[in-house]
Amino acid sequence: MLVIEGPSGNGIGKSIASSLGCDFLESLHTIFPDGESEVGITAPVEGKDVVIVQSTCPMPDKRLIELVLLANEAKRQKARSICAVVPYLAYSRQDQRFEEKGNAVSIYTILEMLNFAGISTMVTAAPHNSESLKAFNGRMIVADAITPLANEVKKDLSKPFVLAPDKDALYIAKRFAEVLGCGYTYIKKQRNKLTGEVKILEAPKDVDFKDKELVIVDDMISTGGTIVQAAQFAHANGAGRIVAAAVHLVMADGAYERMRGAGVDAVYGTNTIPYDRARAHTVDISDAIAAAIRSKAAPTKA
Amino acid sequence: MLVIEGPSGNGIGKSIASSLGCDFLESLHTIFPDGESEVGITAPVEGKDVVIVQSTCPMPDKRLIELVLLANEAKRQKARSICAVVPYLAYSRQDQRFEEKGNAVSIYTILEMLNFAGISTMVTAAPHNSESLKAFNGRMIVADAITPLANEVKKDLSKPFVLAPDKDALYIAKRFAEVLGCGYTYIKKQRNKLTGEVKILEAPKDVDFKDKELVIVDDMISTGGTIVQAAQFAHANGAGRIVAAAVHLVMADGAYERMRGAGVDAVYGTNTIPYDRARAHTVDISDAIAAAIRSKAAPTKA
Repeated sequence: MLVIEGPSGNGIGKSIASSLGCDFLESLHTIFPDGESEVGITAPVEGKDVVIVQSTCPMPDKRLIELVLLANEAKRQKARSICAVVPYLAYSRQDQRFEEKGNAVSIYTILEMLNFAGISTMVTAAPHNSESLKAFNGRMIVADAITPLANEVKKDLSKPFVLAPDKDALYIAKRFAEVLGCGYTYIKKQRNKLTGEVKILEAPKDVDFKDKELVIVDDMISTGGTIVQAAQFAHANGAGRIVAAAVHLVMADGAYERMRGAGVDAVYGTNTIPYDRARAHTVDISDAIAAAIRSKAAPTKA
Repeated sequence: MLVIEGPSGNGIGKSIASSLGCDFLESLHTIFPDGESEVGITAPVEGKDVVIVQSTCPMPDKRLIELVLLANEAKRQKARSICAVVPYLAYSRQDQRFEEKGNAVSIYTILEMLNFAGISTMVTAAPHNSESLKAFNGRMIVADAITPLANEVKKDLSKPFVLAPDKDALYIAKRFAEVLGCGYTYIKKQRNKLTGEVKILEAPKDVDFKDKELVIVDDMISTGGTIVQAAQFAHANGAGRIVAAAVHLVMADGAYERMRGAGVDAVYGTNTIPYDRARAHTVDISDAIAAAIRSKAAPTKA
């Protein structure tokens, strides 16, 4: 097996190669003045099982094209198999069509495109919607990035309680609660099928946040809007310290400031996306990914 | 037939729809805070012959992904045929492997990817290397953008002479010379097969640039380096006024200033790529593209 770190592998490639005890190669990478990427595989891969590590944030389109180019190059060089480790998979949230809007369900096309490029196995972490990933015409392995993240949060809190900002994040809250040995709940919401708008239907009323250290968990933080909404609710209901934890720190411009402004005391995440370590506690999930590759089977989600 | 203007159609879609007298639609387009594009086709296209217009510069990767998403959406909606008008095709210059470097020949992958997305016909202009475009597993039509560009240059010059900066651009120089009714030549160069480095082998010695208005022509201007080299040579050999003309004004940062600094008096180009009209005379090539679609056959190059 040969692990190739793509231009946005974020060091995970090197770590998993060392963890798996296999060969490692950094891909050739240049960005030309016109904005085009040049990539290349500078060692022969014919007959080899190749693992390409490439996260797809920031610059999702550039990182996806680079992954397609690298995978297709491995295919042309007659690699025996091509596995793509995509710790954060861009376009995962574009998983529904809203009739009024007429938007494309992009994640299906992205998965088909990666498969077309020669990728037969994919490894990712905390997918936004596991159901849509089933459309991938190959093996999809989900590495357990949630447990190491929860373990990191555990170090800092003594009276935790876990809150999922919506039902989709409930499986993450459940796993966190197991690790932290505490209770958990979620906020009921509804998304308008026509417009995509989200409305809070019902907030959890059966729990007492008073004096609790609230851990708001989600698969990703993008603008921070979802976390802010949950934090405001938690504060209004007497929560003490509030922290936010998400596997993928997409962190669009202003996300950190927005959360801090809503009283989020600390942010926890992983290295599926490069992010400022001074602003968030980040956990390396290379071991979880290496374990997923070793097992060649999807770990349980909860 | 329905013409859909993609996010970077640069107005060409609307013009060709009007020229072809067919229906027109602008695609849905949003860029999310995390950098992902959302696209969509907001009218039914089932059973229709769809033409999607999308140039791929600047932001080549984003524009390519958007094109893939749009084409695949038309395919899902069961369009009868999908034609992509890509006035400027990114990655065209990555058409050779340099052994020492180990780079991927990206243009082949890009062409396969567009075909996979459902595109069976492509229309482009002044391709960097027509030979490599033959790899496209569908119909490839080259619109004649050179003649309208040469006609624009003709308006401003009285004693022209055409110079191709290398042999690849010779077919453009020949067509320009026909339109301008003047002579033409080229600078002999050699590209190192291992490193990709370019060396001037021989400059044209059999022609007199004295008091001529020199038109340096190429398929594209990226950093401007090739034009600068040719302009310096032309000045050293007594040329009077020097202008540069290229179909694709990629114009990487500093390209304009670099050429002006080397004594290039004016820049001519087309609207295959959006560019500052105060800096370059730009010709609309919508009619040439509409003609190409109408003919459904490649116009001659020279």
